[in-house]
Amino acid sequence: PAKPASCRTMPQLGLLHRRVWTVLLGQFLRPPRVVCIRAVRSHSQVAEAVLTSQLKPHPEKPNFVLKTPKGTRDLSPEQMVVREKILNMVVSCFKRHGAKGLDTPAFELKEILTEKYGEDSGLIYDLKDQGGELLSLRYDLTVSFEVPFARYLAMNKVKNMKRYHVGKVWRRESPTVAQGRFREFCQCDFDIAGEFDPMIPDAECLKIICEILSGLQLGEFLIKVSDRRILDGMFAVCGVPESKFHTVCSSVDKLGKMSWEDVRYEMVVKKGLAPKVADRIGDYVQCHGGMSLLEQMFQDPGLSQNKQALEGLEDLKLLFEYLTLFGVAEKISFDLSLARGLDYYTGVIYEAVLLPTPDQPEEEPLTVGSVAAGGRYDGLVGMFGHKVPCVGLSIGVERIFSIMEQRMNMFGEKIRTTETQVFVATPQKNFLQERLKLIAELWDAGIKAELLYKNNPKLLAQLHYCENSGIPLVVIIGEKELKEGIITLRTVASREEVSRCQQK
Amino acid sequence: PAKPASCRTMPQLGLLHRRVWTVLLGQFLRPPRVVCIRAVRSHSQVAEAVLTSQLKPHPEKPNFVLKTPKGTRDLSPEQMVVREKILNMVVSCFKRHGAKGLDTPAFELKEILTEKYGEDSGLIYDLKDQGGELLSLRYDLTVSFEVPFARYLAMNKVKNMKRYHVGKVWRRESPTVAQGRFREFCQCDFDIAGEFDPMIPDAECLKIICEILSGLQLGEFLIKVSDRRILDGMFAVCGVPESKFHTVCSSVDKLGKMSWEDVRYEMVVKKGLAPKVADRIGDYVQCHGGMSLLEQMFQDPGLSQNKQALEGLEDLKLLFEYLTLFGVAEKISFDLSLARGLDYYTGVIYEAVLLPTPDQPEEEPLTVGSVAAGGRYDGLVGMFGHKVPCVGLSIGVERIFSIMEQRMNMFGEKIRTTETQVFVATPQKNFLQERLKLIAELWDAGIKAELLYKNNPKLLAQLHYCENSGIPLVVIIGEKELKEGIITLRTVASREEVSRCQQK
Repeated sequence: PAKPASCRTMPQLGLLHRRVWTVLLGQFLRPPRVVCIRAVRSHSQVAEAVLTSQLKPHPEKPNFVLKTPKGTRDLSPEQMVVREKILNMVVSCFKRHGAKGLDTPAFELKEILTEKYGEDSGLIYDLKDQGGELLSLRYDLTVSFEVPFARYLAMNKVKNMKRYHVGKVWRRESPTVAQGRFREFCQCDFDIAGEFDPMIPDAECLKIICEILSGLQLGEFLIKVSDRRILDGMFAVCGVPESKFHTVCSSVDKLGKMSWEDVRYEMVVKKGLAPKVADRIGDYVQCHGGMSLLEQMFQDPGLSQNKQALEGLEDLKLLFEYLTLFGVAEKISFDLSLARGLDYYTGVIYEAVLLPTPDQPEEEPLTVGSVAAGGRYDGLVGMFGHKVPCVGLSIGVERIFSIMEQRMNMFGEKIRTTETQVFVATPQKNFLQERLKLIAELWDAGIKAELLYKNNPKLLAQLHYCENSGIPLVVIIGEKELKEGIITLRTVASREEVSRCQQK
Repeated sequence: PAKPASCRTMPQLGLLHRRVWTVLLGQFLRPPRVVCIRAVRSHSQVAEAVLTSQLKPHPEKPNFVLKTPKGTRDLSPEQMVVREKILNMVVSCFKRHGAKGLDTPAFELKEILTEKYGEDSGLIYDLKDQGGELLSLRYDLTVSFEVPFARYLAMNKVKNMKRYHVGKVWRRESPTVAQGRFREFCQCDFDIAGEFDPMIPDAECLKIICEILSGLQLGEFLIKVSDRRILDGMFAVCGVPESKFHTVCSSVDKLGKMSWEDVRYEMVVKKGLAPKVADRIGDYVQCHGGMSLLEQMFQDPGLSQNKQALEGLEDLKLLFEYLTLFGVAEKISFDLSLARGLDYYTGVIYEAVLLPTPDQPEEEPLTVGSVAAGGRYDGLVGMFGHKVPCVGLSIGVERIFSIMEQRMNMFGEKIRTTETQVFVATPQKNFLQERLKLIAELWDAGIKAELLYKNNPKLLAQLHYCENSGIPLVVIIGEKELKEGIITLRTVASREEVSRCQQK
């Protein structure tokens, strides 16, 4: 293999420190606000050309299919950039609200995870019994991190804590349901555990959802709010037998995706609810609005007589008051059709949905339903023998992630997958030593820099690499520069070049 | 439940935007450089006091033990702060060198993971066969992310890529080995795939290790460097039968933990190596040094006659040349006892160790052995039918993490687990509304702010909360402030208070 000339004496470049380099490159190095460039693929033609022709497909093919497990995928550098941007936004909001980070293992003792989910446990990934404990991967539902969180609180006898948790969760989605849904995904949760005065933490959770969805600029959104006690009260008032609360609730939950007629059909024909009872439910669940609907429900002869429902209504009234102070009341809709996790939540429940924009019909693929959800679950930690009330939220980052991706594809946006600020180039042969010395100074000064891993790359190849990977600035060093003690700075976009004194 | 007074009219506070708030609080809000405070526990006494006495242990105890799975642990908020700091340092270094992010699923098809590790596969966590594919959690060895990376490159026919990968890996460490070693841990890898001119990417990998270890201020360190071909050549020259290369190599690998006498005993008595052969190995593996040792080995009558060894020596010479240009050659030691992953690496190999500091004897718990390692593995991707040479490194963040933790414990440093900048307090009763409105303005201005979730907290309780959780600044609002249109800013540490005009 060719070696660089090592005999030529190198002139003293002078140790340029962080400050000097920063001043030198200052006006050119702007924070990387713009992630979208007009560049083409991340695997540049230049770099491709660097490959020698001796690379042939390996003769011995592996005797197995190269794939990721069913329902999972690799995240490409482009996807990682989008994901990182979203997660940074979400986590910085959680931190703005004083949350601490917490991490729990990817798997838990099976009995801890399944304690709550006899029904759905087929969706949990179990680890093979290799001797020792029976383990399962932590499972997404509404409660992915809440169960580990509850286990943590109970184990450590923690009585109050505001924490966030970002990590992967797994769901062994059955093949029939699996279209387009992943079995491994990222989840971002924020929860407030502790006994506090009513509705203050609950209101903060809703405020956080608003801040995140506004911050991500996903367009208009609405947060549907209700209360488990109002729902229970409503079912009781309508005459639903208590044994059918759960199944009727899961029908009501489908109202976002199905029409009321279809939901009514399911309740009456499939679940054997009296038509009169179903109609009474229909009167309620088609109601949604703000404070005025709430006032109206206080007047409702049925609900106002039901102790549970009345408690729920009073809490929601207080919640709306706080949300008004927080300046987000207009984003909130009291919605009696909201019926999530009936057997799990104990108080207020909420779910944020994106609204279709005027120029985007509702059938558009961008409509992805719920993007954030949560509620109050005062009973869960108690199941682990340590009673602590909790309220929390989960941001549907995977959905937000696909919306962002679709949008970028729609607008043909290209994403920079590196953050490199400066490229070190030379027009000369046998200049590897100078390039290596120069780039080390840049790295040591904290500047993000790259060069081509070739002894004698062509200048054009080096400049193409910058164009293709969106590097904004090139430091050029050659015989002329070395002799005069200068460097040439080239702005890739404008192709303008200036010379700067290299030494202090 | 007590409600806040809602009848009193609130004076217009004026919408203070981000800029205004930032100016107002500017001189007080410094970047949170100092993570260590003199505060006590994160679960403050104040917040404890907020809990009502109605919280009793739940009567129905769970019928299972509350624990994390064997060999795993939760990361507390304190640990998360340390971890985040380390990971940020590591990732920003990877990005400084132009790396892209990549993520792969937590599990892979079992056959992909075990293709390479017949021997050790008992340490791999398998998922239960629930129908469908046989899966295993990605496995740590030296190659935790390299196998998924190789699979990714081969699947997507990628011919060159500089990527980093941060994530969890799992190793079903057998119980006897398990003392103090975790079965789930975080791993940070950086790899350069592609056909390039020799030793340029390899030198960059070593430069990166130096930057990270220096940046983390872990004390003095040394990177041992060798080459798989020199090792093979050395064994051949010494007269080791080729069938024993692997087992002799694993004996040599123990030289860090065992004396030469013990290693020699193992090779001769347990592995049946001729004593004369072992002694010849001993002459080599006790050598370490810089360029001069390298020159000496070029003169070695045995090694210099061995084609493989000579190639390795020539590459190392070039590597040292580049490392000198990078300004890190003095951190590198050519060490013939370095013998990692013989069946996996194909060229240069390296391993970074922390050196004991003068005031810290070598037997100290802070001595944790290898903190970073890597090498060239040109054959791995080819196993998946797509030949691409690779060189990479893995930062032992778990080890670095425990060093940092031990240090903090040693120096009694407390860690702030939140980043809250401002606390909103009031000395008055019935001031919840004003506090909520004020804190929403702070949040909307991007300022990290907290308040107590109580209708009428005592001022002392609020100030104690700030002291305990290290919040540096308090915004106080009361009748007086409201009437005069001002706010009072209190610096928690100095207890100094100033008044500021609240309106623009």
